[in-house]
Amino acid sequence: MIRVVFFDLDDTLVDTSRLAELARKNAIENMIQHGMPVDFDTAYNELLELINEYGSNFPHHFDYLLRRLDLKYNPKWVAAGVIAYHNTKFAHIREVKHARKTLIKLREMGYRLGIITDGNPIKQWEKVLRLDLDDFFEHMVVSDFEGVKKPHPKIYQKALKIFEVSPEEALMVGDRLYSDIYGAKRVGMHTVWFRYGKYADRELEYKEYADFKINDLLELPEILEVLKDGSNKEVPADR
Amino acid sequence: MIRVVFFDLDDTLVDTSRLAELARKNAIENMIQHGMPVDFDTAYNELLELINEYGSNFPHHFDYLLRRLDLKYNPKWVAAGVIAYHNTKFAHIREVKHARKTLIKLREMGYRLGIITDGNPIKQWEKVLRLDLDDFFEHMVVSDFEGVKKPHPKIYQKALKIFEVSPEEALMVGDRLYSDIYGAKRVGMHTVWFRYGKYADRELEYKEYADFKINDLLELPEILEVLKDGSNKEVPADR
Repeated sequence: MIRVVFFDLDDTLVDTSRLAELARKNAIENMIQHGMPVDFDTAYNELLELINEYGSNFPHHFDYLLRRLDLKYNPKWVAAGVIAYHNTKFAHIREVKHARKTLIKLREMGYRLGIITDGNPIKQWEKVLRLDLDDFFEHMVVSDFEGVKKPHPKIYQKALKIFEVSPEEALMVGDRLYSDIYGAKRVGMHTVWFRYGKYADRELEYKEYADFKINDLLELPEILEVLKDGSNKEVPADR
Repeated sequence: MIRVVFFDLDDTLVDTSRLAELARKNAIENMIQHGMPVDFDTAYNELLELINEYGSNFPHHFDYLLRRLDLKYNPKWVAAGVIAYHNTKFAHIREVKHARKTLIKLREMGYRLGIITDGNPIKQWEKVLRLDLDDFFEHMVVSDFEGVKKPHPKIYQKALKIFEVSPEEALMVGDRLYSDIYGAKRVGMHTVWFRYGKYADRELEYKEYADFKINDLLELPEILEVLKDGSNKEVPADR
């Protein structure tokens, strides 16, 4: 019997990847508009490479971009990038389609809700607060705060301990087969792979750890009904 | 004969102090609204003390605030503070009254314009770009970029060199008697003390370095006319 539904945050509840792409493109455009002498494609591709190498939370993307493009450091261009990036992020942050509708439905059905996410705790809370999603959740477990990343069992065990439930009483929903699905299944949780965004066709070697596969969050209430009956418990809905 | 007019940025062109106060108050309010168990006055005063001790560019104001208030670290509260702080800064940034009108007039009169400011180059450029003031200025000299702060002569000499003018051809306008007026006068520039904001009655021991004193930026065109005539050059307009 499921009592708690855990969600991944990025690209499961918050439409992060789409937002980041838009923000980066607007940043490059604004840098060029303020005089950076590079064409859009060159600069954008260099930025993507840089983010790929240094990670998306690296705080000096735009400084390093200038160095990589052999341009003299110019704080005006960096500021133009930073402004456009932040303006876009603040103005265009969106929930993944049907996220709020699903959360309301699950609360209505009596489920307790939690978030298990990687990333910087303040940045992750910012997303949740900006979308006004916080009232749905009892707790958010963030890897950089706990010192352990998904799919490490400890972060899942930590979440179970906070909610005082056993793994069989918990369902994990996420877009990444490796960190979300493999990770949660290893500690004994039920798992729903949300096939969405850039990980929709990646990490397929971990597909066997998904009990269910969905393309729309609104399929979750149905799956929970199936799990309640118990009859179909071992028969994945979509494989 | 004046050819270049230099401006300080914070509390001379951009209404920084008023904005910072509003942003800090909104941050505390949002932290309390998201569950931080402290009353407004206690939290706000602790924040002011902290900023006083660590400086306004210290990046961990809200973390340290929780520590000082003997509260457990809570990234949700910190995020609530950060969001409200940034939202306020972005939505409420304003020019100092008559700043743009004055800049237009000075350009119309044929003067070249520059900015000499302390602070972080990216943050200073952000303010200029968000207010769309950049097209008025040929150059902004920022202390943290040059490695030397006002009132050190080097930052003023640097500005003169960039504009290729002598000190007698330059006028410095700023709200701080120490960093702006004393600093500029020491290298031989003409000086206008803009009596505005929290420094309107401070550092008065440097008052003698101000050639002129104004309460409104729109008095500048008049002063430049006086300096053009040359007749009143040694007679401060308002002392």
